[in-house]
Amino acid sequence: MPVDTLLKVETTGKWTSGVQTSVKVRSFEPFIVDEPTDLGGADKGPNPVELVLAGLSSCTSVMIAIIAKEQNFTYDAVNFSNSGELDLAGLMGAEGVSPHFQTIDFTVGISTSESIEKLQQLQDEVEKRCPVMNLLRDAKIPVTSQWVIN
Amino acid sequence: MPVDTLLKVETTGKWTSGVQTSVKVRSFEPFIVDEPTDLGGADKGPNPVELVLAGLSSCTSVMIAIIAKEQNFTYDAVNFSNSGELDLAGLMGAEGVSPHFQTIDFTVGISTSESIEKLQQLQDEVEKRCPVMNLLRDAKIPVTSQWVIN
Repeated sequence: MPVDTLLKVETTGKWTSGVQTSVKVRSFEPFIVDEPTDLGGADKGPNPVELVLAGLSSCTSVMIAIIAKEQNFTYDAVNFSNSGELDLAGLMGAEGVSPHFQTIDFTVGISTSESIEKLQQLQDEVEKRCPVMNLLRDAKIPVTSQWVIN
Repeated sequence: MPVDTLLKVETTGKWTSGVQTSVKVRSFEPFIVDEPTDLGGADKGPNPVELVLAGLSSCTSVMIAIIAKEQNFTYDAVNFSNSGELDLAGLMGAEGVSPHFQTIDFTVGISTSESIEKLQQLQDEVEKRCPVMNLLRDAKIPVTSQWVIN
């Protein structure tokens, strides 16, 4: 195994009140993760599964930057939107119901003068190598992604 | 399927510069996801895989709050720390190397006067029903978790 490609990442956190947690990453200001009031929280921040969806968009963004360079693909702007559906019966303890995402829809809009073929090539390579996309697909979540030119 | 237990969550985002993304969840202030400088970023915020680890701690925190009530388990404080190891060869395109976590270590420290047996019971049920923990385990990531009484 090529030891010099190994990367260790770390976070810490502490329960603050209710279903609320303060999370700390490296030297950044701690941020609050909570639940909306209808899910029993005080609605002071995004919830944990929203963080995972935020991870999907931002990871895709990193991979676009890296792979666009490799493929000489130029672009001016990228927008992301995603949604995920969960069945709360899973976390409430119903047997046979996954507590995480049943499905995820993901749209990537790119402002570019490149061709549809080059966009497809970019999408294919990004999705093949993106850590968070692969995490979700390895967990057998059907992720429907649509890449469009804006 | 019990339709009233379905929950849809959504996020949006936009590429800002380099490998940096601004992510928006509901009505909260957008936050910046970036990479450290040694990974090609401007280090303006946590990176995408750190968000996933933050999701694991905060999701566990929500589930502890819910399940402790069910089990009449009382506690005064909870702390979380986790680390994950990735092999960057995966995202660089090496065949056969997963681009996401090779392993994750997770420690939960609880201040409580409950017994070790009751703590084990809490841990078992939380890990069985926690959305983010199940996502990681469904993706076949070996997650080593250790729950201790502080």
